[in-house]
Amino acid sequence: MAVYTHVSADEIEAFLNSYDAGTVVAFKGIAEGVENSNYILQTTKATYILTLYEKRVNPDDLPFFLGLMDHLVKKGCNTAAPVADRKGNVLKVLCGRPAALISFLNGLSVSRPGPDHCYQLGQEMARMHLAAADFDLGRENALSVAGWQDLVSQCAGHADDVAAGLKELLHDEMSFLKENWPYGLPEGIIHADLFPDNVFFMDGALSGLIDYYFACNDILAYDVAICLNAWCFEGDGAFNMTKAMWLLKGYAEVRPLSNDEMAAMPTLCRGAAFRFLLSRLYDWLNQVEGALVQVKDPAEYIRKLKFHRAVKSPSEYGLDL
Amino acid sequence: MAVYTHVSADEIEAFLNSYDAGTVVAFKGIAEGVENSNYILQTTKATYILTLYEKRVNPDDLPFFLGLMDHLVKKGCNTAAPVADRKGNVLKVLCGRPAALISFLNGLSVSRPGPDHCYQLGQEMARMHLAAADFDLGRENALSVAGWQDLVSQCAGHADDVAAGLKELLHDEMSFLKENWPYGLPEGIIHADLFPDNVFFMDGALSGLIDYYFACNDILAYDVAICLNAWCFEGDGAFNMTKAMWLLKGYAEVRPLSNDEMAAMPTLCRGAAFRFLLSRLYDWLNQVEGALVQVKDPAEYIRKLKFHRAVKSPSEYGLDL
Repeated sequence: MAVYTHVSADEIEAFLNSYDAGTVVAFKGIAEGVENSNYILQTTKATYILTLYEKRVNPDDLPFFLGLMDHLVKKGCNTAAPVADRKGNVLKVLCGRPAALISFLNGLSVSRPGPDHCYQLGQEMARMHLAAADFDLGRENALSVAGWQDLVSQCAGHADDVAAGLKELLHDEMSFLKENWPYGLPEGIIHADLFPDNVFFMDGALSGLIDYYFACNDILAYDVAICLNAWCFEGDGAFNMTKAMWLLKGYAEVRPLSNDEMAAMPTLCRGAAFRFLLSRLYDWLNQVEGALVQVKDPAEYIRKLKFHRAVKSPSEYGLDL
Repeated sequence: MAVYTHVSADEIEAFLNSYDAGTVVAFKGIAEGVENSNYILQTTKATYILTLYEKRVNPDDLPFFLGLMDHLVKKGCNTAAPVADRKGNVLKVLCGRPAALISFLNGLSVSRPGPDHCYQLGQEMARMHLAAADFDLGRENALSVAGWQDLVSQCAGHADDVAAGLKELLHDEMSFLKENWPYGLPEGIIHADLFPDNVFFMDGALSGLIDYYFACNDILAYDVAICLNAWCFEGDGAFNMTKAMWLLKGYAEVRPLSNDEMAAMPTLCRGAAFRFLLSRLYDWLNQVEGALVQVKDPAEYIRKLKFHRAVKSPSEYGLDL
């Protein structure tokens, strides 16, 4: 949570001049978004989010991200969408950074999601998968199997400083996933970071998904596996099968899972746990002094990975093959 | 800039139940306020700031701060004010922290104030001084002469690591201020932290003052001296007498300065520069690893202090004795 780039009153007022979005009433940096600087902007017309893309985002990816958000909104999905300026541009420059004005999505993220939250998340994720099917841009997932191998190479040497036996676990899991990663499953655009932080609810009803800045083309069921990891474990580390069942039920009502997808779920869940374990481990080992972002403990995902490694059948996730 | 205490969706919804302030529409931590956690809260009724008071604020001072804000609003000052719950309480507890819901003040802080901003600031500060005169609580300024001595004792040993000759400067200035600090000037409640961050403007007109969490009883003209330091130096370190003249003119139009107050201004400015030099130096020398707040460089206030030490007459601030 941070604001990396400071935007002054003069700068935001000048920036807003190129839009038909009213004049500034209030403007405050928000403690949201690990990768970018975000401001909440109230104008005489509406509330917006102003995002400045910082160095961890590749500017070449921005037309994909912003185009996807725009596409999804036009297909009726609940999501924040970029606002075009008077010339029709959504991607702009502010304070030397790529920047976009984004519509404001009402709602709150839940910190302890219940089964009904999981059910609605499943439905909305499936709707998003279907709605994105005819989006005409694509983006490779840099954090899939090949990317994991890179992170393992960079982290393994210091892994045992973080947790005893972690180096062996990384190598062992990497070998397993390389050999067993499922191919041939339905692919499409996935969100790839649908943690509770990125899902808003209003009065118990899902109001939308945000933060598409990891979206990419990958196995659709892998997005489900990421959510099983992010939504269905309790604070004490226990897996909650009820929540998983409702998440999968919600998803399958909108986009039914094939037998192959269900059969692959344990491996996809291992991959998803491994992916977040690796990125957290990398950030943990490469903490920058004075950084504004609090690094997340990789231990949570070591535990989750170990859970999935012990799973014997998709039925343990509540899947009924 | 930071959010130290995380408030969940459930917690904010439950908290808001005790108010007649609508239900939550959006809730985001903002990167504002060095001492406290601040959230922007949009409800079905209005926008608010939710503040959780963190450990640097003494809870015993909160009735003074919140009472003062309420008093000032009732006297017609432009400021944010605490909102009372259904039982009439403004000071509450949330997530184990003292907390208050504060009305939202529209406007933007200016990063490069011009003479007209300074003029309006002077007027509003004077109005605030007059309006606070009949507020019935008081608070000693912990960061006045006696407090400076404590900070000098704590910092002097390492001061030369920060800037060559700083230790001698601290001792020398402390001696001067102890001997020459003016007594007998008009006192009252001062804001004591009226930096540009804490003053909002809308379409060029001052819309209000915020952040009264350093307010205290002290010499009224000392508040003016703090503002001369905070508003009237350029980015390159040069003092801008035009801005100072307009600030003083705005102030004196509402509350005329006596000859004694004008004569004391160079010493008050030295004290104000010294006070911020000391607190920045202390924070600089006592940086906490992993802290979310970026520490400000004390060098800016070394330069300002040196400027004031070279001042020969109040006329150098644009004062006409």
